[in-house]
Amino acid sequence: MSEIRQDEATKRWVIIATERAKRPSDMAAAPTADQQERAPDCPFCPGNEHMTPPEVLAYRDGGGRADSPGWQLRVVPNRFPALSPAGEVEVHDPQWFTNVTGVGAHEVLIETPVHNAGPAELGVDGAARVLEAAAERFEHLRQDPRLRYIAFFRNHGRPAGSSLTHPPTQIIATPIAPTNVRQEIEEARRYCDDRMSCVYCETIRQEVTAGERVVLETDHFLAFEPYASRWPFETWLIPKAHAAVLEGAGAGYLQPLAGALQATLKALHDALGDPAYNLVLHEAPLRDSCEDYYHWHIEILPRLATAAGFELGTGIWINSVLPEQAAAYLREHV
Amino acid sequence: MSEIRQDEATKRWVIIATERAKRPSDMAAAPTADQQERAPDCPFCPGNEHMTPPEVLAYRDGGGRADSPGWQLRVVPNRFPALSPAGEVEVHDPQWFTNVTGVGAHEVLIETPVHNAGPAELGVDGAARVLEAAAERFEHLRQDPRLRYIAFFRNHGRPAGSSLTHPPTQIIATPIAPTNVRQEIEEARRYCDDRMSCVYCETIRQEVTAGERVVLETDHFLAFEPYASRWPFETWLIPKAHAAVLEGAGAGYLQPLAGALQATLKALHDALGDPAYNLVLHEAPLRDSCEDYYHWHIEILPRLATAAGFELGTGIWINSVLPEQAAAYLREHV
Repeated sequence: MSEIRQDEATKRWVIIATERAKRPSDMAAAPTADQQERAPDCPFCPGNEHMTPPEVLAYRDGGGRADSPGWQLRVVPNRFPALSPAGEVEVHDPQWFTNVTGVGAHEVLIETPVHNAGPAELGVDGAARVLEAAAERFEHLRQDPRLRYIAFFRNHGRPAGSSLTHPPTQIIATPIAPTNVRQEIEEARRYCDDRMSCVYCETIRQEVTAGERVVLETDHFLAFEPYASRWPFETWLIPKAHAAVLEGAGAGYLQPLAGALQATLKALHDALGDPAYNLVLHEAPLRDSCEDYYHWHIEILPRLATAAGFELGTGIWINSVLPEQAAAYLREHV
Repeated sequence: MSEIRQDEATKRWVIIATERAKRPSDMAAAPTADQQERAPDCPFCPGNEHMTPPEVLAYRDGGGRADSPGWQLRVVPNRFPALSPAGEVEVHDPQWFTNVTGVGAHEVLIETPVHNAGPAELGVDGAARVLEAAAERFEHLRQDPRLRYIAFFRNHGRPAGSSLTHPPTQIIATPIAPTNVRQEIEEARRYCDDRMSCVYCETIRQEVTAGERVVLETDHFLAFEPYASRWPFETWLIPKAHAAVLEGAGAGYLQPLAGALQATLKALHDALGDPAYNLVLHEAPLRDSCEDYYHWHIEILPRLATAAGFELGTGIWINSVLPEQAAAYLREHV
C-alpha cells in the first residue's frame, strides 16, 4: 500500500506510490506511438480484458459477460494504483514525519474500444457516455466516508504525462482534500464574505461582457481563456448556472456538457494539431458545504510549454501567448 | 513590456510575456543538442559577445574590454526578458482584471566560456564564481525599491525547460512576492507561533537524527531527500545555520556552499546519468522581516517524471520513488 506524506513546513501532501516505480535508468524511456485501430498488446483494447483487473463498470449495448469484448466503455481499477480501496485511514503523526495510509481508489475509464481514437474524436454521444460513467462511479465512491475528494482527469499525449495511445480517463479518490482546491475555496470564500457573491459567477459575467477571451458560448456553458492563463491556450469550461459540484447540475446537464466539451476539445485539436493537454475537473470536496461560493469547472491545460525552475520555485507562471489572441485563434476553429 | 496579471479567484500571478512568443506550430520544435566545446552560433560562447545585450557584470582575470572574449563568467540581460527594468510599478485594478506593469529584471548568468560544460563540471571554484556573481547582482538589484523578490534558478536539460546547451543560470527580479514563497512563509510563521522555533531548523535536526534521507553532510550544509519529496530524487541543500536569506549567511559561506553544491550536483549527475533538473533558491522576499522563522535553502528538482493532470489539478504530487531509497542510491555516488 502506498503512503500519503505531509511536509511539515508547507503542509503539502505527497503520495508515495512505489508500486509505480521504474528503475531510474528506465524513467526517460518512451514507448513508440502506434496508429492502428486495435493493438494486440494494448490492455485497453477489446479481446485483452484479461490484461486489466476485473471491471467495476461497463456499458454493453448488446449485453454480454463482464470482462469480455462487446463494450462501448469500461471502467477498471488501475493496475498500479496510486491509492487502494482496502484499509482504514490512519493518521501517523509521531511528532514529526506525518503520514496517512494510502487508502482511496484509482480507476481507469476506457472511453472507447478503438485503440487510436483521441478524445476530440469521441463525438457528443461518446463524451456523454464518459460523463455518465463518471457520474455512476462518483455516486458509488461518494458513499465511502473515508474519502474526501474525487479527482477526475485526462492526460492526453506524452508531454502531458500519458504513455499510452489508447485513451483512458482517470479517477483518483483521496482521503485528503487537495491543496489547490482548498486554496481556491479559501479565496472564493474570502471574496464571498466581501461581496456576497460567487467569484466564478462574476468571472462569467465579466468574460461574457468583455467577449475577447471567449472561445464558445452555449445555453448552459462558457468556454474561455482565463485572463491570467498560466499556459498558452489554457481553456476553461464553466457552467453558467452556479453549483459547487458537477452532480449539483443534475443529469440533464450531461448532454449539454458533452456537446460543449466536444466542441472545445475539437477547436483545440483543429487549431493546434492535436496538442498534448491535461483536462481536470475542479469541484468542491465531498461533504464540504461551500455551495454559496464555490463553482465547479473543467480546466484544460495544453502542454505546449514546459514549467521550469521559475514556475516551480515561485508559483508564478510565465505564459508567452496573450489569452485574447489564443481565444481569437480558437474561435476560428469552433 | 510584459504584463503581470492576477487571477481574481485564486490570487495566482501570471506574467504575460508575449515577446517570448513563438507561433503555436513552432512550440514543440527542438533544436538539436551539440557536443562541442565552442559553437559558432551560440550567443553564450566567447567571440559572440555581440549576440547578447551589453554585459552587466563579467569576471576577466586577465582584464580586457567589456563585451569581448577573455572572461570566466558573464552576466547579461535576457534578450527576451520576462520582466524589464524601465518604468514604474503601476497596479491596474479596474474593479476586475487586475494587472501590474511588468517591471523587474531578467538576467542570464553565463557560468563558463566552455559551450558544453554542465553545472556538475564547473568545479568548486567555478561554482563559487557563480555564487559570487549572483551575490553582486543581488546586492545591486536589492537597492531597487520597486522589487519584491529575486528568483535565482537554473534549468538543466530539455525536460527542465532549457533549450540551450551552453549552461546559463537565470535571475528574475519581480515586483510581486511569489505565491509559493508566501505560502511557505505563512506556514513557517504558524509553526513558529506554535512552537517558538524555525520549522526548517527542526527539519534539519529530524533529518540528521533519522539519517536515512541524508545525501551528504558538511560542516555547514545538509543535502537530503525531503520526507515528502514531490519528485523522484528531489534534493534539498540547506544551511545548518539559521538565516532567512542567503546574504544573511555572509561572504564566508560562498566557498563552503560551492563545495556542498558541487558535491550534490555531481552525485546526481553520476547516479542518474546527467538528469535534467531545475535548481531554485528559496529565500525571504526583499524587506520582508521574517528572520525568526524562514530559512533559505536550495531545491533541486530532477525532471525524471512528468507532472500530469492529477498533480496540476489537485496540487497533490505522486512520486514513484521512496526518498529513503533515493538517498541511499545517491550516497553511493557522493
